[in-house]
Amino acid sequence: MKAEILAVGTELLLGQVVNTNAAEIARMLAEIGIGVYHQTVIGDNEERLASAFRTALARVDLLVVCGGLGPTEDDLTRETLAAVLNLPLHRDEEWERHLLRLFELWRRRGSTSSKPPENNLRQTMVPEGATLLPNKRGTAPGIFLIHDGVTIVLVPGPPGEMRGLMREEVLPRLTQQLSDGGKTAVLRSRVLRVTGLGESRVAELLQELLASQSNPTIAPLAQLGEVHLRLTAHAPNEPDAEALLTRSAEAIYEILDDAVYGEDDRTLEVVVGDLLRKHGRTLSLAESCTGGLVCHRLTNVPGSSAYLLGGAVTYSNELKKSVLGVPGDLIVRDGAVSESVARAMAEGATASFRSDMALAITGIAGPDGGTSTKPVGLTYIALTAHGETECREFFFRGERCEIKERAAHSALEMLRQRLLGK
Amino acid sequence: MKAEILAVGTELLLGQVVNTNAAEIARMLAEIGIGVYHQTVIGDNEERLASAFRTALARVDLLVVCGGLGPTEDDLTRETLAAVLNLPLHRDEEWERHLLRLFELWRRRGSTSSKPPENNLRQTMVPEGATLLPNKRGTAPGIFLIHDGVTIVLVPGPPGEMRGLMREEVLPRLTQQLSDGGKTAVLRSRVLRVTGLGESRVAELLQELLASQSNPTIAPLAQLGEVHLRLTAHAPNEPDAEALLTRSAEAIYEILDDAVYGEDDRTLEVVVGDLLRKHGRTLSLAESCTGGLVCHRLTNVPGSSAYLLGGAVTYSNELKKSVLGVPGDLIVRDGAVSESVARAMAEGATASFRSDMALAITGIAGPDGGTSTKPVGLTYIALTAHGETECREFFFRGERCEIKERAAHSALEMLRQRLLGK
Repeated sequence: MKAEILAVGTELLLGQVVNTNAAEIARMLAEIGIGVYHQTVIGDNEERLASAFRTALARVDLLVVCGGLGPTEDDLTRETLAAVLNLPLHRDEEWERHLLRLFELWRRRGSTSSKPPENNLRQTMVPEGATLLPNKRGTAPGIFLIHDGVTIVLVPGPPGEMRGLMREEVLPRLTQQLSDGGKTAVLRSRVLRVTGLGESRVAELLQELLASQSNPTIAPLAQLGEVHLRLTAHAPNEPDAEALLTRSAEAIYEILDDAVYGEDDRTLEVVVGDLLRKHGRTLSLAESCTGGLVCHRLTNVPGSSAYLLGGAVTYSNELKKSVLGVPGDLIVRDGAVSESVARAMAEGATASFRSDMALAITGIAGPDGGTSTKPVGLTYIALTAHGETECREFFFRGERCEIKERAAHSALEMLRQRLLGK
Repeated sequence: MKAEILAVGTELLLGQVVNTNAAEIARMLAEIGIGVYHQTVIGDNEERLASAFRTALARVDLLVVCGGLGPTEDDLTRETLAAVLNLPLHRDEEWERHLLRLFELWRRRGSTSSKPPENNLRQTMVPEGATLLPNKRGTAPGIFLIHDGVTIVLVPGPPGEMRGLMREEVLPRLTQQLSDGGKTAVLRSRVLRVTGLGESRVAELLQELLASQSNPTIAPLAQLGEVHLRLTAHAPNEPDAEALLTRSAEAIYEILDDAVYGEDDRTLEVVVGDLLRKHGRTLSLAESCTGGLVCHRLTNVPGSSAYLLGGAVTYSNELKKSVLGVPGDLIVRDGAVSESVARAMAEGATASFRSDMALAITGIAGPDGGTSTKPVGLTYIALTAHGETECREFFFRGERCEIKERAAHSALEMLRQRLLGK
């Protein structure tokens, strides 16, 4: 079943609102094995909307239209669809009684005037032959219609209303249709998260696999400091889809080994947290250029207080000395951004905060402060564990916030490698 | 000038990534008076991509294509466009030399293998007659081409790269084109950032203004902890558009007063930073439940080292005592999440870190750790300045990360109010 998602609204077209609905509907359809082939956005304009309807009806089996069902003049979806299909609109008396009861209730609570404005009564109109889908969260009902072999679904634009109607009314009907047609297939995805290798290097290493592989498909996507490999399998049922994903994931693990640090929503901070917990190690942080970002990421993980004692953000040299005990003459001799200071910061953190391990980061995040010998992006990351300290030098590119992100990511990755015993 | 935005990528089509690029590009085009009439998303599929190109070229004057310029096999935008337009692809030697130098630099820093993989060299190919737009943030350049009266722009998909190329290379060229054609109508937007009031309260206060206002339009948009009011004015030229925006902004300031904390990209941390600098005050942080987030936000601002000395993330009670000097019996008596401990943390921070002012945050971010008397979301924020400490109690709703964000936002807002002398 080929699907198209058509989102209606000038606020989307002008970019004032991001089209999260299309992404969410696409994910819901994928769950039941329906692939989206086109996404389109059209403003509140009758002519272009009619043209988008005609284009979609000619190329897909399922059209989900989101938005333009509200009570205001510029909500045109219902009327335009009826005009394009040449279907008369009928008033749905049950929904009309429901709206009258609703407005009476709101009036008694003092939150509206006495009766539904005429505009709201437009929301009771349904094209001939269509099913009205009751909306528990608003006044605009959904509409479900099969016309010339194409299934057409209209849902309102507010995300909560769209989501509720899709889950409660639309997906069950579509699943039924698929099973009636003997087309019960599922699409399942898995994301392998890779760090330490660039996108082109990953593509190079997986070249053969990427070329020979069609189910699951493997799509690499570059992220800041990492590459996500998205595997998408289609199969008649969930266990088969999962088996395909697992086989393919294993082939990737064989090649990339522990450059794959996690799957799906398991971020680097989650993985590192689990390793700390497993090894029974406590951690503290001494951050300069990352300004608290490493600590922030680690504390996003529920339960992180079990292994993270805390840390210091020592932006000033004074704090590097007083809180972490970095010798002042070291800062004078080598500068605050140097290997020796990074080492002293990490060692100072384990001592001051009494943790098993400590990470220290000092660098030049820019835009100012760089010199020819110490350019913006130069960063030292030191890791102390049980009295032993290692330190690495990095040159990160990008703007200030990007350098902070890359430095934080590399620090967590150094910690992961150490915890893996590398 | 009618525009279409075509985003390319299976990850967008399947909803695995939300199409924020289309919204951002639409806003940028609106700034220079170009209206977007269509947004389309197509997967990494040559045939459907070619068909989308042909459809767009027949209906708009400007086509902006985003994505599919990466180094992997499924990046098809460049080649498909050349095929549709029947233009040969030439290697751009200057970009090739640039890539070779870049890879050599990365190799010397140890972050890549010796030379660009063949895949990256595909990124040096340019359709005949097109201009290559150099990308400072990645290996994929943009492309600018005028063909049969339609302006075609290709930009890479990573948001930072897209944004940089649009701002630095594409928008200036489009503005030039518009002024050459005598079509200089402009759309200008301004965002007023409001904090401390909910979206419905803001709408209520501005009811009359919102109803009577059509140029500029005023669109409220709820954000975490704040409300953004987007004003969009159209006028024959920039000074007129700016005058309309200013008049409307002044009317809003009159009603909302200093609940409007900043405009456009001036985030709360930028505004607070400017106030600290203006008053010549230094700041330190003592964070528990926010885990370094306040420090992270403040250090995102270039030059923040002028007023931010640093801070401590004291997740464990031990660190609250040893680093901040919080009395142990206070923690035993009142608990770590209490007004007395928040006050002691802030006072301890000014003493330990020798700053003029200190912010302390202690709370229960959840999901665990809540009780009936101290539920998840309970947070105390204390602010010390010149020996005087104030403390406020908050109940934040949402999940862990949301509670952290709301607490950090409220802490910065408390600081802003104090610096304004309230």
